[in-house]
Amino acid sequence: MRLSQLGEFGLIRRLAARIGGREGDAASGIVLGLGDDAAAFRPTPGRLLVATADMLIEETHFRRDWMSARDLGWKALAVNLSDCAAMGAEPRFALACIGLDAATPPEYVEECYDGMQSLAEHFGVRIAGGDTVASRSGLVFSVTATGEVEPERMATRAGARPGDILLVTGTLGDSAAGCAALLAGPETARQVPEAIIRAHCLPWPRVREARAAVLTGGVTAMMDLSDGLTSDLGHICEESGVGAEVDAAALPISQPLREAAALLRRDPLSLALHGGEDYQLLLTVDPSQAAAVREAVTAATGTPVTAIGAILPDGRWLRRADGSRQPLTAEGFHHFGESI
Amino acid sequence: MRLSQLGEFGLIRRLAARIGGREGDAASGIVLGLGDDAAAFRPTPGRLLVATADMLIEETHFRRDWMSARDLGWKALAVNLSDCAAMGAEPRFALACIGLDAATPPEYVEECYDGMQSLAEHFGVRIAGGDTVASRSGLVFSVTATGEVEPERMATRAGARPGDILLVTGTLGDSAAGCAALLAGPETARQVPEAIIRAHCLPWPRVREARAAVLTGGVTAMMDLSDGLTSDLGHICEESGVGAEVDAAALPISQPLREAAALLRRDPLSLALHGGEDYQLLLTVDPSQAAAVREAVTAATGTPVTAIGAILPDGRWLRRADGSRQPLTAEGFHHFGESI
Repeated sequence: MRLSQLGEFGLIRRLAARIGGREGDAASGIVLGLGDDAAAFRPTPGRLLVATADMLIEETHFRRDWMSARDLGWKALAVNLSDCAAMGAEPRFALACIGLDAATPPEYVEECYDGMQSLAEHFGVRIAGGDTVASRSGLVFSVTATGEVEPERMATRAGARPGDILLVTGTLGDSAAGCAALLAGPETARQVPEAIIRAHCLPWPRVREARAAVLTGGVTAMMDLSDGLTSDLGHICEESGVGAEVDAAALPISQPLREAAALLRRDPLSLALHGGEDYQLLLTVDPSQAAAVREAVTAATGTPVTAIGAILPDGRWLRRADGSRQPLTAEGFHHFGESI
Repeated sequence: MRLSQLGEFGLIRRLAARIGGREGDAASGIVLGLGDDAAAFRPTPGRLLVATADMLIEETHFRRDWMSARDLGWKALAVNLSDCAAMGAEPRFALACIGLDAATPPEYVEECYDGMQSLAEHFGVRIAGGDTVASRSGLVFSVTATGEVEPERMATRAGARPGDILLVTGTLGDSAAGCAALLAGPETARQVPEAIIRAHCLPWPRVREARAAVLTGGVTAMMDLSDGLTSDLGHICEESGVGAEVDAAALPISQPLREAAALLRRDPLSLALHGGEDYQLLLTVDPSQAAAVREAVTAATGTPVTAIGAILPDGRWLRRADGSRQPLTAEGFHHFGESI
């Protein structure tokens, strides 16, 4: 069967069976789910609501033959939950808009939603609505995610102060290596460690890590790494009016990345510095709190946290292993300049 | 200049100058606007938050030569504010995702945002973020809008009861006639009354009408007319477990629609019954409250409200002018079955 036979409302009924229909649930705060003009949510008293939206477009952000429908759905939600996490928020509900051509099998869309739902359940997030529309020009996914955070715990890009320590969760560059391997073709993609492909296709949003960090009270600024460390650190520097120094030798580079980089003939350091879509957290913390924040995150989640540099009054520098330093230039992904 | 020269971050800076940057404002409740990982909003105590998202895709929902960039931005926000209105909510903030090719002039995007901003200002809505991404395959717009409503005032599709009166704001079918005229070509589009084209390109969301209606306490169900009266009334019937009868002679048909229909050789009644994208409100009200609701809406907004039928225990019927009745079949627009 094709969507053209099932129709829009038939599709919506099928999706409602997977993600839940009108009924509310206390865990997410949703009082009215899919099936009305809008979803309704009961905010937790005293908290701020955060809201973020990201659009994923076929051939710009992904290729359909790179990842399963399930992985695509997962990733579309993951990148938004990652943005909620970056504010220190607990994610609550999401709206998913999907545009696709009438020849798409309904099963493809259902698997997308299964992927979203699977990730949503990990974090008690409700997919409470959205839109399913016809597209003549490839698959388009646009997801909005919301979360809640105590006003005094909210982390922005604007609070970094000179002397703060730069921390990062997990490892850097894996996703970019995965993307490079997929670009190189299926042969190469099979040769690199599976963890590298998974890092690109199935990012795990650092929701619990972010909550553990902000609850210490020691975080001065936070964001998620989507465009690449050099580019994203630039945003913190701009919004906070500060500079930064990154210690090249300290960057957390995984063993799978070293193997993949060798195979791809890429510099692992460069992938870690500039590669996008890691969806790790970049935090700045007061130096007196750095150990406590690292310990709190790792104790709560098992995720390693690495100190990779410090905030300066101005300038952006990369300190090399030999002690010399060079200007840190952003080479991360940005739209319109290039594509996949 | 093209987007490929300006780049993503250059574009975002230009847009922030038009819709506002990070700073919050008390009117919308936004405490952190465009420029961080997510926007932050302070909910009004005791209210529910409603959230809705719609995607507009070039060649499915619009053609770029049919409407200016400004009108397109207006419409992308309007259809979402209309959904907020349909819940009885006051709109608060929106997120706008736009996908477009690198050859698009930045001015085109700026004009889209000007159109959104212009409508947003009418309703105290803040455009607080979103996403700007490259698309190789035409323009894609996805807007999320949120609003707030007192729990006891929220209107859904599920509350209609047999005996309730069916009300509709404004006139029906104008937008569908506008769409038909644009489809017929620029010559025809110039010949139909301007109000018909405006109804299609610049819908006015019935936010104030909806608030006036729900504040009377007499509304049992409400939705906005996006797919066409017969299709949308079907949703109320399904969600409420009721039937309905529509009185053909009572349908509010404008003089411009009669003129346009004559020119297009279309039946105005059929356009009013099945035509989509009117973005009027369809309400069901307790019969004892019908006069009060109509008067409250018209007193607050000047918008006429017409009684067009009644809710029945079951069945869906159209009563003709001669008193006979025939089954009311939905012929509204749905995705995947057809396109523009």
